[in-house]
Order: sequence, then structure tokens, then C-alpha cells
Amino acid sequence: MSDAPQSFQDLHKLIADAPSADATALQAAQARQAILTKPAGSLGRLEQIAEWLAAWQGRHPPRAERIQIIVFAANHGVAARGVSAFPSDVTAQMVVNFAAGGAAINQLSGWLDASLKVIPLALDEPSGDITQEAALDEAAFLAAWQDGMAALDIEADLVCLGEMGIGNTTIAAALSAALYGGTGADWAGRGTGVDDAGLARKSAAIDAALALHKDHLGDPLEASRRLGGREFAAIAGATLAARQARVPVMLDGFACTTAAALLHAIRPDGLDHCLVAHNSVEPGHARLMAEIGRQPLLDFSLCLGEASGAALAAGLVRAAALTHNGMATFESAGISGPEE
Amino acid sequence: MSDAPQSFQDLHKLIADAPSADATALQAAQARQAILTKPAGSLGRLEQIAEWLAAWQGRHPPRAERIQIIVFAANHGVAARGVSAFPSDVTAQMVVNFAAGGAAINQLSGWLDASLKVIPLALDEPSGDITQEAALDEAAFLAAWQDGMAALDIEADLVCLGEMGIGNTTIAAALSAALYGGTGADWAGRGTGVDDAGLARKSAAIDAALALHKDHLGDPLEASRRLGGREFAAIAGATLAARQARVPVMLDGFACTTAAALLHAIRPDGLDHCLVAHNSVEPGHARLMAEIGRQPLLDFSLCLGEASGAALAAGLVRAAALTHNGMATFESAGISGPEE
Repeated sequence: MSDAPQSFQDLHKLIADAPSADATALQAAQARQAILTKPAGSLGRLEQIAEWLAAWQGRHPPRAERIQIIVFAANHGVAARGVSAFPSDVTAQMVVNFAAGGAAINQLSGWLDASLKVIPLALDEPSGDITQEAALDEAAFLAAWQDGMAALDIEADLVCLGEMGIGNTTIAAALSAALYGGTGADWAGRGTGVDDAGLARKSAAIDAALALHKDHLGDPLEASRRLGGREFAAIAGATLAARQARVPVMLDGFACTTAAALLHAIRPDGLDHCLVAHNSVEPGHARLMAEIGRQPLLDFSLCLGEASGAALAAGLVRAAALTHNGMATFESAGISGPEE
Repeated sequence: MSDAPQSFQDLHKLIADAPSADATALQAAQARQAILTKPAGSLGRLEQIAEWLAAWQGRHPPRAERIQIIVFAANHGVAARGVSAFPSDVTAQMVVNFAAGGAAINQLSGWLDASLKVIPLALDEPSGDITQEAALDEAAFLAAWQDGMAALDIEADLVCLGEMGIGNTTIAAALSAALYGGTGADWAGRGTGVDDAGLARKSAAIDAALALHKDHLGDPLEASRRLGGREFAAIAGATLAARQARVPVMLDGFACTTAAALLHAIRPDGLDHCLVAHNSVEPGHARLMAEIGRQPLLDFSLCLGEASGAALAAGLVRAAALTHNGMATFESAGISGPEE
């Protein structure tokens, strides 16, 4: 990619220059919505999704046929602090499971007829333990960001983003706290299932990391470099590349939404081309959605990650596009309108 | 059908004799759930759906491939009271639109690869105006109930039920009030979009109907005969037939859930083989779900009817079954379990 960012300055410029929604396509979608054979507004969120899709694809009718799912995997030094119920080896084992077709996301990808790309990011080089040092140096952060940008299928109608990384709900909590304030206890949850002692270790690790890095968290990119990890940088990169390529984005759960949130922290409309798929069991997710002003599509008590909630919600986006595009109008169907 | 009910006594016997969930299939689903490659419980509601499907299909693995959608259409004498934004002619016009493939449910049925059956029930014979008389005589009620039972594809893995009938949110509100208490104002909403004056007429019509029939509402079947309509009787019949045939049911919005609710009013577990698809904009629906103790799958601000929400939710049921059936186990994938 000729414009691959080489510095934080480059990244800030790319983010600032990212395109806005297409008002013409949005208006065309709204105009069609009003004449379809249904009472005004009666398809609720399906109508909003169809309009959002048109606005961010920059075309009407919108499409949701070609769906890409990208799962970024990485390991985290903080996992050694006893913050997860599972050992770090599971990240690489799950990458093998993805390749073999045995994970939840494989089944959901099949259900969607989507393309699934799993990108392991230097699994044998965990990010630095954030209680002791920065997660990544600038070169590693930029490399992961570029990997995320390059992973996007720019011909996709929608991209679902997700992650796999033992220890990364601790990272998500620390990064959310850095971006939006609060303490470890405010943002930490049980992740894959830690007990009370594990939860206490998790909160303590987050607080220690926030204290260590506190003088360097003003730039959201720097906050993500210090408190994030490779999959966080990659998700942010993919989210930005999608905006540039007019590919609307479905964000998955807490870690994924946190990773992308720096775009919102940098510019308030930075995530307007994204929907949040679901309300994770992980309690930080609801808090984060309140901060970024989003309502998830589903509330299914999921906390798996690996883009599972995003894939599920993407099916509903396809239904929204098909409904919007395929319905008859009152005039074409010869149906009486509301009585005056 | 040899056991077609000929009287309310027959109906009560069929309802009392309806089968329960299959404990063996449920246990098999729970046992498999526990060994799939994910943290325990991390697929949340998807796990619950897969277990419910197995329990009510009476088999493991469960299936959600063959999906039937049935939309029952009928007209209502109470529509003449100015309770709807649309004229009664629209019911028949929409049946034509369904046949031509132009309605929302046609697009959603295509999305699901489902079979769609639309059953118009004597559209030129509206039910009686419930403010003046019973909606149906016993013969008409039983005939519609039997039509509902006969409509079911007993080989389906899941059936989505829905309705089309101008004026039927007034009917749903009156019948819900009869089954669970409350007044017209408690249960009435704006339906397809009535204004404040229309809403007031609606509440008044419901109160008048409740007052007229108040001494005859003790039997939920009789309440439905007096305050319901043909699509309400048919939906209840289809819901019962599905229980008998071990076909789990997806109920749509307010009118559909009200129609089936008499099975719950007669026996508390009468709807346990059903899920409620979504939380309708129609305010009576949330109240009704609280009465029957159900959490909808979606909250999409829908209020269209015609099984649209049920079809949308059915896609998620299919995803639940595919995920449950297709995932690898920890052992087969060679993945480490939680650390002790």
C-alpha cells in the first residue's frame, strides 16, 4: 500500500482525512424507505441499518452479499499476571482450530457464506507486560496497524472484525480506562471465567498499568501503543482502512470495540461507519458503548470474541439490505395508503 | 386430521395432553455444550437456543434447516371504529402482495431459504365488532383453529408464526386484557400509526368490549372466541399442532404472542416450546411478555407483523444449531482447558 503509515503523524493525518457518509446515497435510501409496502417506520432498526449501509457504502441500493470476517490473534505479556482462566498457549491452539474449521466463528462464517481470514500476529512475541513497560514499541505498533489495514477485502460489502488473545480483556479494560477514565475495578470483568481472586488480580494489574503510563496517555494512539497489543492496533487499522474503502464495519465485543474506539477518541465521528454487534457479558463493554454513544444490535450474553457476535449481527444486516432492496412500493403493489 | 377438535372440550383435552420437553435430548445437548472449544457459557443465548431446540425437537443434534413461515390473515369488524390508520381493504391487498413476493416477509423468507405459506381466513367475512358482539361463533372459531393446525409442516425443524389483519392490535390488546387484566389504556398502542384521537378510540373500544363480555372471560378459549379473530384462533391452533409434532415455534410480535398466550393461560408451560422473536414497539407486547415470563431475542423496534420479526430471529436459531453441531471439542482439537 503506497500510503502505509510510517509514523503516528501519518496515522493522525489518515484519520483526519477519512471520508464522511454519502448524503446522496442516504437520501436515496430514505426516499425508498418511505414508499415501501409497510407502515412508516415499522421495520425499525432494519430500516436504520439499510440507510446506514447506503450512506457508508456510498451507493443506493446498498448491498450486503460479500461479507468478510477478520480475526486478529495476539499474545499479551500481562497474561503472566494470572489475569486469565486459560494459559497463553490457547491463542495459538485456537488459531489451529480456526484453520481446521472447528471454532464457533467457522460455523457462523459458514452460516453467513462469508470469507474468514484469521491473522496471527507474532504469537511467539507477546506484547510487553503493561504493568512494567509499554505493550509495543512504535515500530511494532505501526506494523500491526498496517497488517490490519492490509487484511481488508476492499471489495467487501461489510467487514466483521474480531480477535483472539488470552489476557486481552485485561488489555481492553486498561485501554478503555486510558481513553475514557475510571479505574481497574470500573472496567474489569471475568473474561473467559476468572474467579474472584483472578478478578482482583486483573483490577490491580490495570491500576498498576494506568499508574505507570499515566503521563503518556493524552494521544489515543500512544495510549493504544502502551496499553494495547498487536490485535488492538490491527483492528484499529482495519477499521480505518474500511472507512477509506467505503466498507461498513461490524465490531464484535469488548476487546474489538475498545481497539477501534481510539478513532472515536480522536474524532467524534470516527466510528460512524461502524455498528457494534452485541452487548457483551464483559461489563466494560456496556460502559464503553455509553461512552461512544452506541446501541448494540444484539444482547445475547456472548463473551467469546473471535468475531462471533459480529458475524451473527452481519446476518441481520444482510436481511436489512434484502428487505430494503426487494420490497414492492405501495404504488407498484396497488396498496392503499393510510386513511386521512 | 383424524383428531380435529370439534368442541372446546376437545381443545382443552388436546392442550392438556400436549407433550413435554425431551429430557434425554436436552441432557445430550448440555453435555456437548460443555466440551465445545469455548469458555463455558461464552455463547450465551446461542447455547440456550441450541438446548431448547434439542429438548423440543426431542433429538440431538438439533436441526434448524427446514424452516416454515406461516402468515394468517383475517379482517375485523372493530376496524370500522376508526382504530387503525389503514382501511380494511389493505388486508386483502397485502395478501396479493405476499403472493407477488413484494412484502417484507417475502424478502426475509428468501434470506432464510424458508417455505412461506400465507393463509387468508375468510377475508370477506370480518369477525364481529367486539364492542357489540362476540368476534366469532364457536363453529367459526373451531374452523380457524383447525385451519391453523392443518397449516403446519410437521416435518419442519422450526415454524415462524405471524399475522396480517387491519385492526388486530386492538384485538390483541382486548384479548391480552381479558387474559391478564388491565384496561384499554394499559394495552393499546399506535399499531400501524394512529394519532392521539385514534389511540383514544382504540382504548375506548377495548374498554367497551371488555365491559360487554366481562362475564364470559374465565375460559381463555372463550375469551379468544369473543375478543379475538380468525388469525388469533389459527395461530393458537398452529402453536398447539407444533407442540404435538415436536416442531419448535418462533412467535412474532404483539398480535401473534397474544394469540398463542391462551395456551399459557390454560397451562403455565403451554408456551415452553415457543420463543418470542422480538420486543415490538407496540407497548402491550412488553407487558404481555412480562406476564408470560419471556425475554425476546431481538429488540429492533419492529411493528410490522407478517412474521417479519419471527423470520429474523429464526436465522439466529439456525446459527445456534450450526454452531452447536459443528464446533470441535477441546479434546478433538487438542486445546488446553482452563488452568486450575
